[in-house]
Amino acid sequence: MVQSLGNHLIIELYECHRDVINNAQMVEEKLKEAVRVSGANMVQSVIHEFNPHGISGVIVIEESHFSVHTWPEYGYCALDIFTCGDEIDYHSALQYLKSEFQAQSMSVTELKRGMLDLPVKLLHKPESRGIPAAACA
Amino acid sequence: MVQSLGNHLIIELYECHRDVINNAQMVEEKLKEAVRVSGANMVQSVIHEFNPHGISGVIVIEESHFSVHTWPEYGYCALDIFTCGDEIDYHSALQYLKSEFQAQSMSVTELKRGMLDLPVKLLHKPESRGIPAAACA
Repeated sequence: MVQSLGNHLIIELYECHRDVINNAQMVEEKLKEAVRVSGANMVQSVIHEFNPHGISGVIVIEESHFSVHTWPEYGYCALDIFTCGDEIDYHSALQYLKSEFQAQSMSVTELKRGMLDLPVKLLHKPESRGIPAAACA
Repeated sequence: MVQSLGNHLIIELYECHRDVINNAQMVEEKLKEAVRVSGANMVQSVIHEFNPHGISGVIVIEESHFSVHTWPEYGYCALDIFTCGDEIDYHSALQYLKSEFQAQSMSVTELKRGMLDLPVKLLHKPESRGIPAAACA
Protein backbone atom coordinates (compact mmCIF):
# COMPACT_ATOMS: atom_id res chain seq x y z
CA MET A 1 0.00 0.00 0.00
CA VAL A 2 1.21 3.56 -0.67
CA GLN A 3 2.28 5.24 2.56
CA SER A 4 4.29 8.36 3.39
CA LEU A 5 7.35 8.38 5.60
CA GLY A 6 7.20 12.05 6.51
CA ASN A 7 4.80 14.93 6.82
CA HIS A 8 6.06 18.40 5.92
CA LEU A 9 4.21 21.62 6.70
CA ILE A 10 5.51 24.56 4.68
CA ILE A 11 4.27 27.71 6.36
CA GLU A 12 4.43 31.35 5.38
CA LEU A 13 3.79 33.72 8.29
CA TYR A 14 3.04 37.32 7.28
CA GLU A 15 2.86 40.58 9.23
CA CYS A 16 4.52 39.12 12.30
CA HIS A 17 5.61 41.25 15.24
CA ARG A 18 8.96 42.55 14.07
CA ASP A 19 10.57 42.81 17.49
CA VAL A 20 9.59 39.24 18.37
CA ILE A 21 10.95 37.69 15.18
CA ASN A 22 14.18 39.67 15.49
CA ASN A 23 14.94 38.43 19.01
CA ALA A 24 17.04 35.26 18.88
CA GLN A 25 16.31 34.25 22.46
CA MET A 26 12.56 34.65 22.02
CA VAL A 27 12.52 32.85 18.67
CA GLU A 28 14.47 29.93 20.13
CA GLU A 29 12.26 29.73 23.24
CA LYS A 30 9.09 29.76 21.16
CA LEU A 31 10.43 27.19 18.72
CA LYS A 32 11.38 24.90 21.62
CA GLU A 33 7.95 25.36 23.16
CA ALA A 34 6.33 24.55 19.80
CA VAL A 35 8.30 21.29 19.74
CA ARG A 36 7.09 20.53 23.25
CA VAL A 37 3.47 21.36 22.32
CA SER A 38 3.68 18.99 19.36
CA GLY A 39 4.85 16.13 21.56
CA ALA A 40 8.07 15.75 19.58
CA ASN A 41 11.42 14.99 21.20
CA MET A 42 14.14 17.61 20.86
CA VAL A 43 17.62 16.47 19.88
CA GLN A 44 19.43 19.79 19.38
CA SER A 45 18.63 23.43 18.79
CA VAL A 46 20.64 25.84 16.62
CA ILE A 47 19.94 29.56 16.56
CA HIS A 48 21.74 32.12 14.43
CA GLU A 49 21.29 35.87 14.54
CA PHE A 50 22.09 37.97 11.52
CA ASN A 51 23.46 41.45 11.36
CA PRO A 52 21.67 43.83 11.04
CA HIS A 53 18.52 41.71 11.43
CA GLY A 54 17.04 38.26 10.89
CA ILE A 55 17.07 34.99 12.79
CA SER A 56 17.53 31.41 11.66
CA GLY A 57 16.45 28.72 14.09
CA VAL A 58 16.48 24.99 13.57
CA ILE A 59 15.57 22.28 16.05
CA VAL A 60 16.45 18.74 15.11
CA ILE A 61 13.90 16.41 16.68
CA GLU A 62 13.80 12.64 16.84
CA GLU A 63 10.96 12.92 14.35
CA SER A 64 12.83 15.18 11.84
CA HIS A 65 13.00 19.00 12.30
CA PHE A 66 11.43 22.38 12.90
CA SER A 67 13.01 25.38 11.16
CA VAL A 68 12.28 29.08 11.01
CA HIS A 69 13.94 31.87 9.04
CA THR A 70 12.80 35.39 9.82
CA TRP A 71 12.93 38.63 7.86
CA PRO A 72 11.94 41.19 10.51
CA GLU A 73 12.27 44.05 8.04
CA TYR A 74 9.32 42.53 6.14
CA GLY A 75 7.49 40.98 9.11
CA TYR A 76 7.86 37.59 7.42
CA CYS A 77 8.81 34.11 8.72
CA ALA A 78 9.39 30.96 6.67
CA LEU A 79 8.47 28.10 9.00
CA ASP A 80 8.89 24.40 8.25
CA ILE A 81 7.62 21.59 10.44
CA PHE A 82 8.86 18.25 9.17
CA THR A 83 7.75 15.25 11.20
CA CYS A 84 7.40 11.52 10.92
CA GLY A 85 5.02 9.38 12.82
CA ASP A 86 1.34 9.90 13.40
CA GLU A 87 1.70 10.95 16.99
CA ILE A 88 3.08 14.47 16.50
CA ASP A 89 0.54 17.25 16.91
CA TYR A 90 2.06 19.58 14.33
CA HIS A 91 -1.14 21.58 13.91
CA SER A 92 -1.01 22.69 17.56
CA ALA A 93 2.66 23.64 17.12
CA LEU A 94 1.75 25.70 14.06
CA GLN A 95 -1.08 27.54 15.82
CA TYR A 96 1.18 28.21 18.80
CA LEU A 97 3.88 29.81 16.63
CA LYS A 98 1.39 31.81 14.56
CA SER A 99 0.03 33.23 17.81
CA GLU A 100 3.43 33.85 19.46
CA PHE A 101 4.89 35.55 16.40
CA GLN A 102 1.63 37.54 16.16
CA ALA A 103 1.26 36.71 12.47
CA GLN A 104 -1.68 38.52 10.91
CA SER A 105 -1.98 35.97 8.11
CA MET A 106 -0.42 32.74 6.98
CA SER A 107 -0.44 30.13 4.26
CA VAL A 108 0.19 26.45 4.88
CA THR A 109 1.09 23.75 2.40
CA GLU A 110 1.12 20.19 3.66
CA LEU A 111 3.35 17.81 1.75
CA LYS A 112 3.67 14.08 2.18
CA ARG A 113 7.34 13.10 1.92
CA GLY A 114 8.59 9.68 0.88
CA MET A 115 5.41 8.31 -0.66
CA LEU A 116 6.33 4.67 -1.11
CA ASP A 117 4.42 1.56 -2.03
CA LEU A 118 5.30 -0.63 0.95
CA PRO A 119 4.22 -4.19 1.56
CA VAL A 120 3.69 -3.68 5.29
CA LYS A 121 2.32 -0.98 7.53
CA LEU A 122 4.97 1.41 8.81
CA LEU A 123 6.27 0.87 12.32
CA HIS A 124 5.40 4.38 13.41
CA LYS A 125 1.70 4.18 12.65
CA PRO A 126 -0.68 4.57 15.61
CA GLU A 127 -1.03 0.87 16.27
CA SER A 128 2.63 0.92 17.29
CA ARG A 129 2.20 3.33 20.20
CA GLY A 130 4.98 2.77 22.64
CA ILE A 131 7.60 2.18 19.98
CA PRO A 132 10.31 4.87 20.41
CA ALA A 133 9.86 7.85 18.13
CA ALA A 134 13.29 7.16 16.71
CA ALA A 135 11.81 4.11 15.07
CA CYS A 136 10.23 6.42 12.54
CA ALA A 137 13.53 7.52 11.10
CA MET B 1 7.40 44.38 -7.65
CA VAL B 2 6.75 40.83 -6.43
CA GLN B 3 9.97 39.20 -5.28
CA SER B 4 10.78 36.10 -3.24
CA LEU B 5 12.93 36.13 -0.12
CA GLY B 6 13.89 32.49 -0.23
CA ASN B 7 14.26 29.57 -2.59
CA HIS B 8 13.38 26.10 -1.32
CA LEU B 9 14.22 22.88 -3.12
CA ILE B 10 12.20 19.93 -1.84
CA ILE B 11 13.93 16.78 -3.01
CA GLU B 12 12.98 13.14 -2.84
CA LEU B 13 15.93 10.78 -3.40
CA TYR B 14 14.98 7.18 -4.13
CA GLU B 15 16.95 3.94 -4.25
CA CYS B 16 19.98 5.44 -2.54
CA HIS B 17 22.93 3.35 -1.37
CA ARG B 18 21.68 2.07 1.97
CA ASP B 19 25.09 1.86 3.65
CA VAL B 20 25.95 5.43 2.64
CA ILE B 21 22.72 6.95 3.92
CA ASN B 22 22.99 5.00 7.18
CA ASN B 23 26.48 6.28 7.99
CA ALA B 24 26.27 9.47 10.07
CA GLN B 25 29.86 10.52 9.40
CA MET B 26 29.49 10.07 5.63
CA VAL B 27 26.13 11.84 5.52
CA GLU B 28 27.53 14.80 7.46
CA GLU B 29 30.69 15.00 5.33
CA LYS B 30 28.65 14.93 2.11
CA LEU B 31 26.17 17.48 3.39
CA LYS B 32 29.03 19.80 4.38
CA GLU B 33 30.63 19.34 0.97
CA ALA B 34 27.30 20.11 -0.71
CA VAL B 35 27.17 23.38 1.23
CA ARG B 36 30.70 24.16 0.06
CA VAL B 37 29.85 23.28 -3.55
CA SER B 38 26.87 25.63 -3.41
CA GLY B 39 29.02 28.52 -2.23
CA ALA B 40 26.97 28.91 0.94
CA ASN B 41 28.51 29.73 4.31
CA MET B 42 28.14 27.12 7.05
CA VAL B 43 27.09 28.29 10.50
CA GLN B 44 26.59 24.98 12.33
CA SER B 45 26.05 21.32 11.54
CA VAL B 46 23.87 18.91 13.53
CA ILE B 47 23.86 15.19 12.86
CA HIS B 48 21.71 12.62 14.65
CA GLU B 49 21.86 8.87 14.23
CA PHE B 50 18.85 6.75 15.00
CA ASN B 51 18.70 3.28 16.42
CA PRO B 52 18.44 0.88 14.63
CA HIS B 53 18.85 2.98 11.47
CA GLY B 54 18.32 6.39 9.93
CA ILE B 55 20.19 9.69 9.97
CA SER B 56 19.01 13.26 10.38
CA GLY B 57 21.44 15.96 9.34
CA VAL B 58 20.88 19.70 9.31
CA ILE B 59 23.35 22.41 8.42
CA VAL B 60 22.36 25.97 9.25
CA ILE B 61 23.96 28.27 6.71
CA GLU B 62 24.08 32.06 6.57
CA GLU B 63 21.65 31.71 3.67
CA SER B 64 19.13 29.43 5.54
CA HIS B 65 19.63 25.64 5.75
CA PHE B 66 20.28 22.24 4.22
CA SER B 67 18.55 19.24 5.81
CA VAL B 68 18.44 15.54 5.10
CA HIS B 69 16.47 12.73 6.74
CA THR B 70 17.30 9.23 5.66
CA TRP B 71 15.36 5.96 5.79
CA PRO B 72 18.06 3.42 4.87
CA GLU B 73 15.62 0.54 5.17
CA TYR B 74 13.76 2.01 2.18
CA GLY B 75 16.75 3.57 0.38
CA TYR B 76 15.01 6.94 0.68
CA CYS B 77 16.25 10.44 1.63
CA ALA B 78 14.18 13.57 2.14
CA LEU B 79 16.49 16.45 1.24
CA ASP B 80 15.70 20.15 1.62
CA ILE B 81 17.89 22.98 0.36
CA PHE B 82 16.56 26.32 1.54
CA THR B 83 18.58 29.33 0.44
CA CYS B 84 18.26 33.04 0.05
CA GLY B 85 20.19 35.16 -2.34
CA ASP B 86 20.85 34.60 -5.99
CA GLU B 87 24.46 33.62 -5.54
CA ILE B 88 23.99 30.12 -4.10
CA ASP B 89 24.47 27.31 -6.62
CA TYR B 90 21.89 24.97 -5.12
CA HIS B 91 21.54 22.93 -8.32
CA SER B 92 25.19 21.87 -8.11
CA ALA B 93 24.71 20.94 -4.45
CA LEU B 94 21.68 18.85 -5.40
CA GLN B 95 23.50 17.01 -8.17
CA TYR B 96 26.45 16.38 -5.85
CA LEU B 97 24.24 14.78 -3.17
CA LYS B 98 22.24 12.74 -5.69
CA SER B 99 25.53 11.33 -6.97
CA GLU B 100 27.13 10.76 -3.54
CA PHE B 101 24.05 9.05 -2.12
CA GLN B 102 23.88 7.03 -5.37
CA ALA B 103 20.19 7.81 -5.80
CA GLN B 104 18.71 5.95 -8.76
CA SER B 105 15.89 8.48 -9.15
CA MET B 106 14.69 11.71 -7.63
CA SER B 107 11.96 14.29 -7.74
CA VAL B 108 12.54 17.98 -7.14
CA THR B 109 10.00 20.67 -6.32
CA GLU B 110 11.25 24.23 -6.28
CA LEU B 111 9.26 26.63 -4.13
CA LYS B 112 9.65 30.36 -3.82
CA ARG B 113 9.30 31.38 -0.17
CA GLY B 114 8.23 34.80 1.02
CA MET B 115 6.72 36.13 -2.20
CA LEU B 116 6.22 39.78 -1.32
CA ASP B 117 5.30 42.86 -3.27
CA LEU B 118 8.23 45.09 -2.37
CA PRO B 119 8.82 48.65 -3.47
CA VAL B 120 12.56 48.18 -3.89
CA LYS B 121 14.84 45.50 -5.23
CA LEU B 122 16.11 43.12 -2.53
CA LEU B 123 19.61 43.71 -1.23
CA HIS B 124 20.74 40.21 -2.08
CA LYS B 125 19.95 40.35 -5.78
CA PRO B 126 22.89 39.93 -8.20
CA GLU B 127 23.51 43.61 -8.63
CA SER B 128 24.54 43.63 -4.97
CA ARG B 129 27.47 41.23 -5.35
CA GLY B 130 29.87 41.84 -2.53
CA ILE B 131 27.21 42.43 0.07
CA PRO B 132 27.66 39.80 2.80
CA ALA B 133 25.42 36.77 2.39
CA ALA B 134 24.00 37.46 5.83
CA ALA B 135 22.38 40.51 4.34
CA CYS B 136 19.85 38.20 2.77
CA ALA B 137 18.39 37.19 6.09
